Amino acid sequence: MTVLYALDLTGTAAFAASGAWIGVRRHMDLVGVLVLGLVTAVGGGTLRDLMVGDIPPFSLQNETYLYVSVFAALLVYASRKRFKMVERPLLVLDAVGLGTFVVIGTTKALDYHLGFFGAALMGVMTCTAGGVVRDVLANQVPLILRKEIYASACFAGALLLVALEVAGTPRPIAALIAASAVVMVRLLAIHFNWSLPRA
Amino acid sequence: MTVLYALDLTGTAAFAASGAWIGVRRHMDLVGVLVLGLVTAVGGGTLRDLMVGDIPPFSLQNETYLYVSVFAALLVYASRKRFKMVERPLLVLDAVGLGTFVVIGTTKALDYHLGFFGAALMGVMTCTAGGVVRDVLANQVPLILRKEIYASACFAGALLLVALEVAGTPRPIAALIAASAVVMVRLLAIHFNWSLPRA
Amino acid sequence: MTVLYALDLTGTAAFAASGAWIGVRRHMDLVGVLVLGLVTAVGGGTLRDLMVGDIPPFSLQNETYLYVSVFAALLVYASRKRFKMVERPLLVLDAVGLGTFVVIGTTKALDYHLGFFGAALMGVMTCTAGGVVRDVLANQVPLILRKEIYASACFAGALLLVALEVAGTPRPIAALIAASAVVMVRLLAIHFNWSLPRA
Repeated sequence: MTVLYALDLTGTAAFAASGAWIGVRRHMDLVGVLVLGLVTAVGGGTLRDLMVGDIPPFSLQNETYLYVSVFAALLVYASRKRFKMVERPLLVLDAVGLGTFVVIGTTKALDYHLGFFGAALMGVMTCTAGGVVRDVLANQVPLILRKEIYASACFAGALLLVALEVAGTPRPIAALIAASAVVMVRLLAIHFNWSLPRA
Repeated sequence: MTVLYALDLTGTAAFAASGAWIGVRRHMDLVGVLVLGLVTAVGGGTLRDLMVGDIPPFSLQNETYLYVSVFAALLVYASRKRFKMVERPLLVLDAVGLGTFVVIGTTKALDYHLGFFGAALMGVMTCTAGGVVRDVLANQVPLILRKEIYASACFAGALLLVALEVAGTPRPIAALIAASAVVMVRLLAIHFNWSLPRA
Repeated sequence: MTVLYALDLTGTAAFAASGAWIGVRRHMDLVGVLVLGLVTAVGGGTLRDLMVGDIPPFSLQNETYLYVSVFAALLVYASRKRFKMVERPLLVLDAVGLGTFVVIGTTKALDYHLGFFGAALMGVMTCTAGGVVRDVLANQVPLILRKEIYASACFAGALLLVALEVAGTPRPIAALIAASAVVMVRLLAIHFNWSLPRA
């Protein structure tokens, strides 16, 4: 499915850029910027694949993901003085990646015969685990654990997808609905600055 | 073995509660509290399964563990104002979980034909890796690396179990002895505030 | 290949010593010192094996690596008052380990039919992932992300090895050249205090 693949690579590039940018802001060297870009972009899907049993993971089976990630991270490193200009549009691409990744992760887990809750968790992991590792490497409490509607938007989308599957909705339609819901919720959350209450 | 399964779920709930409580104390939002609960409860056994080669891991093969963890974490979140009251009894349940997990982890590793030292390490990992990830996510040096008789009690119990197996003790008896030893050492360590010397 | 195995165990011991030393410096207890030693020594290769699909990983298939790591960590713990004396020679052994690990990791990944870039990354991961986990456990931003020619030396060596393979060089010769290059670059970087520019 070519559209899905294009969205997948777009999301990968956006995630890599956001990871690389954290590396720049934390004054890491080029290795640090590249590692944070790579980990953020492919970390979630890689961990999902190790868990469902698709080994080697997608990122080592199709190196396009690695090249796209490295290229995006290098671009951020090279144009770090002007990064502020793209920070806002990048959030939109990140949201598109979120919707795409949650659909890819959840459907893959269902195809590997996981249960509904486990499959939804794998969808969320695809979206978030890379960013969690990025934050851990940058020595800060992962963003998704303390603010913003991010993991929760993914989880809602994953549950919606599972429910549509159970209801017999053809997968392309279920995927489109779930992905759109995630992107929309995420963009609204950014615009209105929504967050979950903190303990 | 129904008793073992009941103890397993009890320990899972206790571990999830302790993880969720750290999320509450670090002022995370609901996502953070749930993630810390889940990771603490099933993280160790999941990592063990990825290492010995039982993929997907137990937590994705039997979702009861996920439901129990989420329920315990939600309970902690909902009753966080009164948590202090259960903090002490929870330490006892945590110790029971410790004894149970070390036996489950070590025997599983032996059944997967690991060597004695590796099997003992897998027993310790079952008990401790979830808590280590919890502490890393909460951005603190893992508790087990710096104080308390916790990992060391697990390791002693795992070695005892391996030694009993080598000596030909029937597994249910070996398991009972090793688990009891771990629970007892851990409770004594809590009561007398034992710890290993620090470097 | 006996020489390679001897170098492998030497590097394992050097890595374990460096990990244990960080545990000592962070005032961890004996458990912490052992865990940091073990993780630093076998963490990278273990993660690589989980990714390429050689499960259980090498460290659970041949327990010699575990024994060597524990022994080296215990030695550091026991002689921590005089550790300063060996700090410098240890850097040389660490460099030898680096050259050895990158060759072992990259060739193993090639044997598991990974692509060239993925294989090079697995070589780098073999060298660096253990140290990254060590630093995360010690609650600091991983050293390799912010300074020194370390991961970059590994990556250059891994790419050189892949290029030599593609060019048809017999593997023992390609391995020798790549390993020597890594060791030399690393020792020069230590001596001249080279580092990559920071963002």
